[in-house]
Amino acid sequence: MAKLVFIRHGQSAWNLSNQFTGWVDVDLSPEGVEQAKNAGRLLKEAGIEFDQAYTSVLTRAIKTLHYALEECGQLWIPEEKTWRLNERHYGALQGLNKAETAEKYGEEQVHIWRRSYDTLPPLLDANDEGSAAQDRRYAHLDPRAIPGGENLKVTLERVIPFWEDKIAPDLIDGKNVIIAAHGNSLRALTKYLENISDDDIMNLEMATGEPVVYDLDEKLQVQNKQKLN
Amino acid sequence: MAKLVFIRHGQSAWNLSNQFTGWVDVDLSPEGVEQAKNAGRLLKEAGIEFDQAYTSVLTRAIKTLHYALEECGQLWIPEEKTWRLNERHYGALQGLNKAETAEKYGEEQVHIWRRSYDTLPPLLDANDEGSAAQDRRYAHLDPRAIPGGENLKVTLERVIPFWEDKIAPDLIDGKNVIIAAHGNSLRALTKYLENISDDDIMNLEMATGEPVVYDLDEKLQVQNKQKLN
Repeated sequence: MAKLVFIRHGQSAWNLSNQFTGWVDVDLSPEGVEQAKNAGRLLKEAGIEFDQAYTSVLTRAIKTLHYALEECGQLWIPEEKTWRLNERHYGALQGLNKAETAEKYGEEQVHIWRRSYDTLPPLLDANDEGSAAQDRRYAHLDPRAIPGGENLKVTLERVIPFWEDKIAPDLIDGKNVIIAAHGNSLRALTKYLENISDDDIMNLEMATGEPVVYDLDEKLQVQNKQKLN
Repeated sequence: MAKLVFIRHGQSAWNLSNQFTGWVDVDLSPEGVEQAKNAGRLLKEAGIEFDQAYTSVLTRAIKTLHYALEECGQLWIPEEKTWRLNERHYGALQGLNKAETAEKYGEEQVHIWRRSYDTLPPLLDANDEGSAAQDRRYAHLDPRAIPGGENLKVTLERVIPFWEDKIAPDLIDGKNVIIAAHGNSLRALTKYLENISDDDIMNLEMATGEPVVYDLDEKLQVQNKQKLN
């Protein structure tokens, strides 16, 4: 048996200003910092001893991990960061205000972009300002691996190889794993882990800074699921 | 050419209370936090782009690394923590006040413990309270690898394998590396890198939170050394 914990990063500055964030490297808000520390206190109370941490290459998830681990006295555990746990890339919508985008394109279109499993947002070109292709942290990637925009389906397809290569082997070895990531990369993992349908997964909401604790058997079947709050 | 940066962790609570620290996991003081952030600002001004970070498994070094990297916008780089970069283990002196220890054992004896290259401190037994043998973060180590107390010679002997296996290959590959660690683990690396004698190394002082920047050629010969302040 191994424990697997998901934490969606605490509130970010753009959660607050209602902008599409995606791969833009927005910081936590002060409330987001408090949420992350509180997650650490809940993990400490639960007495979970972690062996490995994974997070994205985005500051808001990394800081959430660090605040939570420090609070439960486990900042020293091994940590690996990967672009594969990044938030869904929101394409050309990144940086736009959600309400203004709804005014411009219509509520229904925005709803589709946000809630359809397999509709892509308007794409960002590799030459556009703010493209990940111009960011040093993605410089080691094949340019074809850098998305111009993603739906949840595409997000899941780039998250699962990391699950298969790193996270699942740890869990099968009986290691307790903590993953601090994003609403949609965690939705992708949740879908895969719990066999949730394409339709149902879009209705799954993950609260910011609320640890979700799974007990998994050696076949990675969920024996128990508990939200800490 | 590659850049190698050493940062000794910012002031800790026990630097302030004048206690022998060693492997005890003491936190940064508020001033130590500021020193770490300032180191990050200096690195940002210097425009150094890092490829890899290394630190110890002690919170004060890890937090120094995180504050510094966040301040220069590089919290996302890969990080590896290792007990091999830990502070010198101060044996049974850990936790004792330095002035009180001098009263008890004499100034000269304490001076020898602090400044002799190859004199061991009084050792801590694996069964003693506070022994690293009882700490989960060292549970994967062969018990014979867990020190009961170290001098700088022994510290160097357990630091250099990590240099050889991880840090040096990165530098030879042209990667820029940042190491956030401790007075004595950094002394050991400095001695090795600069070929400093056993006698002279004990007089080398590393300021807390002051980045030391080396330019190294592909044979790891020092081409330039600069302290940022």
